Amino acid sequence: MRLGEFSLIKEISKRLVFKDKEVVVGIGDDAAVVKCKDGYQLLTSDGLTEGSHFVDSWKEVVKELYYYLGKKLVNINASDVASMGGEPKFGLVNLALKERFSKEKAIEFYEGINEASKELKVSVVGGNITKSQNLLFDMFLVGKSSSFMLRSRAKPGELVAVSGEVGDSRGGLELLLQGKRKPWKLVEKFLSPKARVREGREVLKLGVKCCTDVSDGLLFNLGTIAESSGVKIEISSSKIPISRELKEVFKEKALNFGLSGGEDYELIITFPEKLIGKIEELGFKVIGEIKKGKGVFVDGKEVKPRGFQHFKEE
Amino acid sequence: MRLGEFSLIKEISKRLVFKDKEVVVGIGDDAAVVKCKDGYQLLTSDGLTEGSHFVDSWKEVVKELYYYLGKKLVNINASDVASMGGEPKFGLVNLALKERFSKEKAIEFYEGINEASKELKVSVVGGNITKSQNLLFDMFLVGKSSSFMLRSRAKPGELVAVSGEVGDSRGGLELLLQGKRKPWKLVEKFLSPKARVREGREVLKLGVKCCTDVSDGLLFNLGTIAESSGVKIEISSSKIPISRELKEVFKEKALNFGLSGGEDYELIITFPEKLIGKIEELGFKVIGEIKKGKGVFVDGKEVKPRGFQHFKEE
Repeated sequence: MRLGEFSLIKEISKRLVFKDKEVVVGIGDDAAVVKCKDGYQLLTSDGLTEGSHFVDSWKEVVKELYYYLGKKLVNINASDVASMGGEPKFGLVNLALKERFSKEKAIEFYEGINEASKELKVSVVGGNITKSQNLLFDMFLVGKSSSFMLRSRAKPGELVAVSGEVGDSRGGLELLLQGKRKPWKLVEKFLSPKARVREGREVLKLGVKCCTDVSDGLLFNLGTIAESSGVKIEISSSKIPISRELKEVFKEKALNFGLSGGEDYELIITFPEKLIGKIEELGFKVIGEIKKGKGVFVDGKEVKPRGFQHFKEE
Repeated sequence: MRLGEFSLIKEISKRLVFKDKEVVVGIGDDAAVVKCKDGYQLLTSDGLTEGSHFVDSWKEVVKELYYYLGKKLVNINASDVASMGGEPKFGLVNLALKERFSKEKAIEFYEGINEASKELKVSVVGGNITKSQNLLFDMFLVGKSSSFMLRSRAKPGELVAVSGEVGDSRGGLELLLQGKRKPWKLVEKFLSPKARVREGREVLKLGVKCCTDVSDGLLFNLGTIAESSGVKIEISSSKIPISRELKEVFKEKALNFGLSGGEDYELIITFPEKLIGKIEELGFKVIGEIKKGKGVFVDGKEVKPRGFQHFKEE
């Protein structure tokens, strides 16, 4: 789950006093974890809001906009489950629709939901439709797992790796804002990111303990690992996996998008060096290492998590 | 869960093809039911939208408006679990907030969430905050149960009963729309309904098989039982439990509010006559009976479910 206003969330969390003994992880990681008879359930929720995450006029550029938004909604929720090492299972989809929102768009949206839920084996078992002044698509997802990874389990001496290229999603957003849909690889990464469910489960099986997804930007999400694990993270900008297409179109901005872009939904993991061969086989690229201390450092220079929030499009 | 646009929901449900074998009940009842090792999990979701369910200006009449909305959000979700006979367990709360929504109101809202979740033993384990042009509070609730009741299990020969007075909530809404907060009993029923969790679990234990909650109005919700069970329901208007306060304030309108008002969150059950003593001990009032056939009849006259949707405030 993504928590926009961290100070408000802290105020709020303090106020929620009832906690069942079955709750293993509450507010504060990518998904909540509750104990059940045959392992753990992972509970998460994420949404797409008109004006913050998309605008209707993109339909002029990408005809199948709502289809992709449906796919994206399922994948961004599945990504929270993936980063815990779980398997997405059951979902509920809530729509807040504007008065003049067409039935055709709603159906197109659900075709995207259906496509992604078939791919990810998610049973959509319910939901709601209400009226609103702006469109809001909200999803709740229940996943399961026999074990789980957390942001807070990075250890000094471990390596840090990321599951794929970062920054493409931000590139895709920039292209849409300019009324372009090419290169499609970038726009597709923004409109239709793929939750790394298989990768999450595989690294968990290998014994990886710490994982999160790149929802708010690589540096920002590294910051959540550093803070919650109480460690220092050092990465090299030359190791950040940036796609050829992103470099070609955005030149010197490409690295910045990779570091701070957000919405890539790749996985960040930390792991002991002995696993490096297997981790690389799964498509992860090593970008740095965990040290004693605190903070996130790029090429030896500390970056402040607050500093890159303004790169976000929200 | 409440599904505003039934025709759209039907279109949508058809499109959702993936269904795990663990899904016992999908879209179409108060909550979805999934099988798990130690019984069943109940999954539901319901929300409160500014403009449809409340307006900010009510705060001038009821200072603690957002506190009550927080309590209501938990209770309307718990009511879906109650009507299946389950126990609410874990919740996620999503807020779509307007730019100028104050932190104080958000905190007041969470104090309501906290109060209700303590009462109902719900662990709130996560959620989201996003921006929106109108306020939208959304909740997802996981419940559990060793067995469950459905709308579709009413049988000819059974009696129909309701757990408390109906219509007060609609009366409370009318008062608020008139800028009044008294009689508080009515306004409180609208702003702070109580999920009948205990009653749901008790009737399930007694062997009751069919239940739903009065979210959209007594007649409307009886209609969902009649349609999904393939039975006819006959009720007597003189048996509808209407409060003294509702009659005093709304005179001849009181019965209509009771029949069609909505948002009472009382439970409707159907049960074999031999259970009548125990059912009445739990506070339920018998209002009619189940016959072979179809439709809902009040004092021998058929009422059409479509006919009372316009009584709704949405």
